[in-house]
Amino acid sequence: MSITLLRLGHRIFRDQRITTHCALTARAFGCEKMIYSGEKDRETEKSVKDVVKRWGGNFEIYYEKNWKNFLKNSSQKKILLTMYGVNLPNVIDKIRNESDIVLIVGSEKVPSEIYGMIDYQVAVTLQPHSEVAALAVFLDWYFKGKEMDIKFSNAKMEIIPMEKGKNIKLS
Amino acid sequence: MSITLLRLGHRIFRDQRITTHCALTARAFGCEKMIYSGEKDRETEKSVKDVVKRWGGNFEIYYEKNWKNFLKNSSQKKILLTMYGVNLPNVIDKIRNESDIVLIVGSEKVPSEIYGMIDYQVAVTLQPHSEVAALAVFLDWYFKGKEMDIKFSNAKMEIIPMEKGKNIKLS
Repeated sequence: MSITLLRLGHRIFRDQRITTHCALTARAFGCEKMIYSGEKDRETEKSVKDVVKRWGGNFEIYYEKNWKNFLKNSSQKKILLTMYGVNLPNVIDKIRNESDIVLIVGSEKVPSEIYGMIDYQVAVTLQPHSEVAALAVFLDWYFKGKEMDIKFSNAKMEIIPMEKGKNIKLS
Repeated sequence: MSITLLRLGHRIFRDQRITTHCALTARAFGCEKMIYSGEKDRETEKSVKDVVKRWGGNFEIYYEKNWKNFLKNSSQKKILLTMYGVNLPNVIDKIRNESDIVLIVGSEKVPSEIYGMIDYQVAVTLQPHSEVAALAVFLDWYFKGKEMDIKFSNAKMEIIPMEKGKNIKLS
């Protein structure tokens, strides 16, 4: 089972925080890596890698200038998350049969060529909101909530859950 | 049943997009309104109100300078979403018994006074990711996925779900 997130059209100035949220959400909810296109952004890459170093696991982030070639050469099933797609509850059972997936999220506008390159397009509600929210809820449904208990290997920091306040175990 | 989102510490320059994503996610996933503190931001308010005008429903956004007074005077149950809390699967059944809720999400750092003012703190995974993701997944679990089919009244735009491409019904 392998899920890659493909983030299209990253712009350093405008998208840095949202792209970082996408990457960290992908990691926390069970993706293996994020590939992003648009503007190469060493700062975002570094902040994601810093989280992986501290919080563990093997999540990776790569830049890919030519996302079309990447999709053409990939044998994974391609799933575009967009409010225009089939609503998640109506398609998730079928998608759970696919174990090797590229999940695609855009920035402001998704290039229309994408529609010829995908296997599914999935809406998480049919309302405008956030690619971060769509990504998290998609993965939560895909994994049926099991991602809530992922243990990340080699974590230097680990949270001890508390009813109030903070408790972090360092190792 | 009434759920309010309280977004703390908004900064116009740094948080505008994330705060907007929080508001739109709150709307799409069944909250009634978002109250935000920090810097008053007419542009964010306008963009959220524009979405409501076009896509329907009664979602509201308000600025509240004094969030502590707001929480002190509120009779709603106060739930802080934070990675340090009790993991969602271990507490959601209890929280579903509460029908009148303020959900609280911070920006970079949450002021420590908050811990004396809340009823629950809930983690959505015990990993660092995104307040937008945490909010969406919390609401999805709270509503057991029923929010996926919310119909918004007086929508001028409505999506006709498609397996490929876009179809928007205008009225």
